[in-house]
Amino acid sequence: MRMQQLTQKARQAAGALALLGIEEKNGALQAIRSAILASADAIEAANQADLARSQAEGLAAPLLKRLKFDSKKIAEVISGMDSLLGLPDPVGRTLLATQLDDGLDLYRVSCPIGVIGVIFESRPDALVQISTLALKSGNAVLLKGGSEALETNRVLARVIGEAAGQAGMPDGWITLLETRLDVRELLDQDESVDLLIPRGSNAFVRAIMDNTRIPVMGHADGVCHLYLDAAADPAMAIRLSLDSKTQYVAVCNAAETILVHQSLAGDFLDELAGALHSAGVTLLGCEQTCARLGCAKVDNWHTEYLDYTAAVKIVSSLDDAISHINRYGSHHTDAIVTADQAAASRFLRAVDSGNVFWNCSTRFSDGFRYGFGAEVGVSTSKLHARGPVGLEGLVTYQYRLLGHGQIVADYASGQARFRHQPSGEAYPLQDR
Amino acid sequence: MRMQQLTQKARQAAGALALLGIEEKNGALQAIRSAILASADAIEAANQADLARSQAEGLAAPLLKRLKFDSKKIAEVISGMDSLLGLPDPVGRTLLATQLDDGLDLYRVSCPIGVIGVIFESRPDALVQISTLALKSGNAVLLKGGSEALETNRVLARVIGEAAGQAGMPDGWITLLETRLDVRELLDQDESVDLLIPRGSNAFVRAIMDNTRIPVMGHADGVCHLYLDAAADPAMAIRLSLDSKTQYVAVCNAAETILVHQSLAGDFLDELAGALHSAGVTLLGCEQTCARLGCAKVDNWHTEYLDYTAAVKIVSSLDDAISHINRYGSHHTDAIVTADQAAASRFLRAVDSGNVFWNCSTRFSDGFRYGFGAEVGVSTSKLHARGPVGLEGLVTYQYRLLGHGQIVADYASGQARFRHQPSGEAYPLQDR
Repeated sequence: MRMQQLTQKARQAAGALALLGIEEKNGALQAIRSAILASADAIEAANQADLARSQAEGLAAPLLKRLKFDSKKIAEVISGMDSLLGLPDPVGRTLLATQLDDGLDLYRVSCPIGVIGVIFESRPDALVQISTLALKSGNAVLLKGGSEALETNRVLARVIGEAAGQAGMPDGWITLLETRLDVRELLDQDESVDLLIPRGSNAFVRAIMDNTRIPVMGHADGVCHLYLDAAADPAMAIRLSLDSKTQYVAVCNAAETILVHQSLAGDFLDELAGALHSAGVTLLGCEQTCARLGCAKVDNWHTEYLDYTAAVKIVSSLDDAISHINRYGSHHTDAIVTADQAAASRFLRAVDSGNVFWNCSTRFSDGFRYGFGAEVGVSTSKLHARGPVGLEGLVTYQYRLLGHGQIVADYASGQARFRHQPSGEAYPLQDR
Repeated sequence: MRMQQLTQKARQAAGALALLGIEEKNGALQAIRSAILASADAIEAANQADLARSQAEGLAAPLLKRLKFDSKKIAEVISGMDSLLGLPDPVGRTLLATQLDDGLDLYRVSCPIGVIGVIFESRPDALVQISTLALKSGNAVLLKGGSEALETNRVLARVIGEAAGQAGMPDGWITLLETRLDVRELLDQDESVDLLIPRGSNAFVRAIMDNTRIPVMGHADGVCHLYLDAAADPAMAIRLSLDSKTQYVAVCNAAETILVHQSLAGDFLDELAGALHSAGVTLLGCEQTCARLGCAKVDNWHTEYLDYTAAVKIVSSLDDAISHINRYGSHHTDAIVTADQAAASRFLRAVDSGNVFWNCSTRFSDGFRYGFGAEVGVSTSKLHARGPVGLEGLVTYQYRLLGHGQIVADYASGQARFRHQPSGEAYPLQDR
């Protein structure tokens, strides 16, 4: 009952948000920006409490690092908001315009999705990022963060909610959920929640999908591959292997598996292994790799190591590499290193992933690097939004048809005929 | 096990289809077109058997009409294929192009979704329509039609599959499913099926959503509204009411409920009721309507009558109308009749439906009338594709990044900087 009330209130808020213009939304973002800066001490104090509790509970060091929300993180979040403020309104864009007949004009216009539920991991900056993206795109949002970050999230949600409220945003546009029971109940609210965005492991995202009829845009594992083709430049192949694997190992777009064409399985393989070893990477391999390098065998090609570990497999052909990726990958980011354009073209077209790269590091798949200015995350779902998701991923569209009393009977009888002329015009009704 | 084999075969076929160019796909469509014409006698004979069996089993007349697949229907299907042949390739379109840096070019390119499961009602023409749309967009398809149309669907699927196979399409791109057990098993194949398109009642679509983690693009009920605003032109209001309600009552974009502003609840309401009565429409009403017109009360405002029945409700304001529509409608198609542009603008923006119209009939929401040239159906889902779904609804996109050995470490250290320049260029690698 409580959850139904919360989501229905969010639904009402979404109705009000959909009618706002960019000035009002940016005004609220400015107010949130100021409020976060003004509340920096309270936010850091809450985060200290979270850190102390989590440390006492034995949270692992990398997770503690992600939990930390200090003045440096606040500065990053503010800088993210500045770039968000500079982006155009994603709502009200004309995506298609067709004159169906004289005085009968069809427009496909972008509009908010409505109510979005987000379930995210420990980083508190995600709360600021996602709620401000939701506001700019006119969506109400229900957020459930990690329990480690409870105090930080509480302060952030309160500061954001109050500042936005004072700037005229409707009550209920942002709601912080705190328990697993909340999440379970949220999954049942398909009448008033339009989209769920879970960010976590594959198993977590699948568990969400199993228990809801709300559409899910998953942000799951990255089992990313780098394929070193027969025609790869050896120096480039080693440089890209190092960057893809080691530039930041704990992220989803780091490479987990390096596929090596069999023609490179001799001296080059030794050189590659040496370079990776020097960078601190432990190698696991297929039978042939292990025979040559004396490393341990790969246990499961589906594994996301998120660590200084790489799996190496010798493949017999380009198509063998493509098959391996489509079978074992997570459809996140996969790259080919080759000087052969035809091989690159085939790879990019045949690999069924959101991001497919030629001669560059897998680490480039990211909304900021792509120039989107803001990022919800990297979607591993195939529909609606795929790959890095910016503001565009938080809107949908409506068809709006403006007429002068036209009826279908006239077109059915042949008295009137459709013209179907692309008009290139922008949707004209911008009043509210 | 059998279903897993079928869907994995479809997945392999999808991999091959993704690599085909428009000439090959259009060649196969031409072959299918010829084969359907050459097999017209066999198709009609199978349909006669379906009709005879269904008549004996007491199938209702409107459903028998939908089941009928005679020379006229074949001609329609062929004409639909002709327009599909004329459409450009939906695959390989450049949707975004950004130069991230010198020699580091990002493209968002449309690509097939992969494997699509479609569960549709009795009309056998849907089988031809959907399978040819899937082929043109490079998708493999598993189809389950109504059991009434079993013989017709068998012949059609065989003729289409054989013709496409002879034209070089991969084995397994089209599969006809025949039993409910098949559908149940299909719902479990989330590893190899990318999208489900159920066409049927709301309850049917919800039942599908309850039992799968595959994304669902629902084609469900149309509880469409026509709102006659205070500033409506009376003659236009009556003309649009008649067309929206009676031009074809058995379809999803026919209006079910007419909302009337209270300022029109006097003489105009009598006139409207008279016009609808003359057209054979039975009226149901809210309390106030019933008091004036002496009609029966509406039982449930969620009802899709699909018949010569209309519900009439007096509303006190524009926002009252919007609230009613967002609460009781099915987010399909809703129209306002008004001379007041501000009222129209607010209505179009606040009504949360795939199609929102000003001063024209609800019956216009249709892929052919919109000029899409071909139609999967009208999606009542909010994400991926909304409203009439043409070829575009059967593709997704990939990000393709073409580099020259760039690594992220150089950008992280500040040695290199992103440029993020929109390039407007088309994706250059069109070889396969």
